[in-house]
Amino acid sequence: MDKTLMGLPEGQSVQRPATIALQNDDCDWKAIAKARLDDLTKPPGSLGRLEGIAAQMVLIQRQERPSCTHKVVYVFAADHGVIEEGVSAYPKQVTEQMVRNFLGHGAAINVLARCAGAEVIVVDVGVDATFEAHPQLVRRKIRRGTRNMTRGPAMTEEEVKAALNLGRLLIQQSPSPDNQLIALGEMGIGNTTAAAAITAVLCRKRVEEVTGPGTGISLETLIHKRQVIEKALEINAVKNAGPMDVLQRVGGLEIAAMTGMILEGHAQRIAVVMDGFISSAAAAVAFAMEPRVKEVLFAGHVSQEPGHRVLLDYIGVEPILNLEMRLGEGTGAVLAMTVIEASVKVLNEMATFSSAGVSGPQA
Amino acid sequence: MDKTLMGLPEGQSVQRPATIALQNDDCDWKAIAKARLDDLTKPPGSLGRLEGIAAQMVLIQRQERPSCTHKVVYVFAADHGVIEEGVSAYPKQVTEQMVRNFLGHGAAINVLARCAGAEVIVVDVGVDATFEAHPQLVRRKIRRGTRNMTRGPAMTEEEVKAALNLGRLLIQQSPSPDNQLIALGEMGIGNTTAAAAITAVLCRKRVEEVTGPGTGISLETLIHKRQVIEKALEINAVKNAGPMDVLQRVGGLEIAAMTGMILEGHAQRIAVVMDGFISSAAAAVAFAMEPRVKEVLFAGHVSQEPGHRVLLDYIGVEPILNLEMRLGEGTGAVLAMTVIEASVKVLNEMATFSSAGVSGPQA
Repeated sequence: MDKTLMGLPEGQSVQRPATIALQNDDCDWKAIAKARLDDLTKPPGSLGRLEGIAAQMVLIQRQERPSCTHKVVYVFAADHGVIEEGVSAYPKQVTEQMVRNFLGHGAAINVLARCAGAEVIVVDVGVDATFEAHPQLVRRKIRRGTRNMTRGPAMTEEEVKAALNLGRLLIQQSPSPDNQLIALGEMGIGNTTAAAAITAVLCRKRVEEVTGPGTGISLETLIHKRQVIEKALEINAVKNAGPMDVLQRVGGLEIAAMTGMILEGHAQRIAVVMDGFISSAAAAVAFAMEPRVKEVLFAGHVSQEPGHRVLLDYIGVEPILNLEMRLGEGTGAVLAMTVIEASVKVLNEMATFSSAGVSGPQA
Repeated sequence: MDKTLMGLPEGQSVQRPATIALQNDDCDWKAIAKARLDDLTKPPGSLGRLEGIAAQMVLIQRQERPSCTHKVVYVFAADHGVIEEGVSAYPKQVTEQMVRNFLGHGAAINVLARCAGAEVIVVDVGVDATFEAHPQLVRRKIRRGTRNMTRGPAMTEEEVKAALNLGRLLIQQSPSPDNQLIALGEMGIGNTTAAAAITAVLCRKRVEEVTGPGTGISLETLIHKRQVIEKALEINAVKNAGPMDVLQRVGGLEIAAMTGMILEGHAQRIAVVMDGFISSAAAAVAFAMEPRVKEVLFAGHVSQEPGHRVLLDYIGVEPILNLEMRLGEGTGAVLAMTVIEASVKVLNEMATFSSAGVSGPQA
């Protein structure tokens, strides 16, 4: 993480470096990946998804031997004005408390990131609290939470653009953009409400199909949550709006920042692992803006939140893991990083039939 | 790994130590695990399968804070006489060649075990080749491959018992039986034929329901493979035979050794991770002999081999991963070890609501 970015006063602009020049983009990387995979000492295709993941990493990095030596999970935190409608099982203060928990290394994402060998960077893009400086915290608050989307747009145009740019900037300012593997995480009490609103509009689904219990609300609260989302969609007239407008009116600051990070990940050929419902809603916005972002996206897992599968189908990606998780924070994404890294190492480190003196299939 | 066992001349007996005395078996470990998991800073149940896995580790080790500091994958290698019927895409020599590949660290299991931080121990329980001593090889060949099961029993009673005992012995002689996490792997050209025969009998399925392409045979060879299995089942009169008889007549030396390892894992409360079709056939035999072995078993993944899901349903376990793999060697099992270890670390290392000052759900 670039320390200058860490230390920047909130809102101060940072000079954007030129996009890294892409090389070797004329090669048939798919064929190169397949030739290598089929020469490894195993029956062709027998490593299943690992082979597809390894091939995708070759395509993303445009390298015969891709790598992911620098793994990082960005946990974007922000509050949501819609929380005052009573849509969550937890009080708003939990966003702030969990940020402090992340910085104290006590949350699930800290434990699982350690397991995966990933760095945790927490980004305050809009928490309604003031945080002291911390080496793992990027303090770039755009607003102390979004506005209540049932009364009008959650963000102004300037705010949503600032959040998008922050996501882009974090990659641009990263000291080692090459060989990166990025996981997206988030924390924001109320953010399944925003994600469900986005999903309903972009994927053209009924609100009840994409709205779930989030952190665990009662059936009564779930019915209320659906009514709140219906109201927000109507008041903001998003039915046929473009992805940026949807994001601005019913999205969230952390969601917009993740959308920006995905767009920049695509621009710089960096693999990005989605986590659950929230980060996939951000990915769906990016995908609606630029379908080719899918090239660099991995779906870390499929969560228990019903709208998540809808988003994965919309983008057209298959989850790596299905462990019935529904926590967020990036937890499913960092677990999947282990599988992605293993896939890359299989490609790079396995012996070939000729080098190991192993016989191939009989004619 | 006990070096004395490594260095034993083939066939020499080893004194069996007394089974470790079990303690604390009157506690309600399930309740203890749940109380801890629900006190961690996350909505109850939100880590899905990870919570169930962590709880199972508490039950297996009968410890509030289980651990799996010593991870090891045993790769049992043996040849199969039935190969002369033409049931595999690869020549028999590949068993020997792959053992040498394992010892040269070039196979998929080597790469994936490194990723998982697991030791690889290769066990020659019946390869038709002679291996020089190697620090990662246990040379305990019982026979140079099984007999052709289409002409009579694959093994004698003595041979199957010797293989079972070898599996048990490897755990008994292990220098650190506590805190272990064991993955089962195998290598043996022709062993999907043996596994399919076992599966058809134990799970009472038709041969065509449980016989798949293995390493990748043509449809024509697949039809032939099914006929070979039908013939073996008939000649050996295994239709209503007990699990030990099934194992002896249509099993394999590596399968029997894995069955023994599972039985001993249960006796010593050590978690054992099954890999694919072959190791799960071994587990099904152990389960048929002693259903409580299920307590210590994890299904690492579900493979593409059609009989594998049948076996998992028979034992009553859900796979951790589904990555469309069908390689064997223990590859799916060691990948799943990462998830099991992550689950244990979540239990042990996450902050609690009170310690982190995070609010619980609203009333």
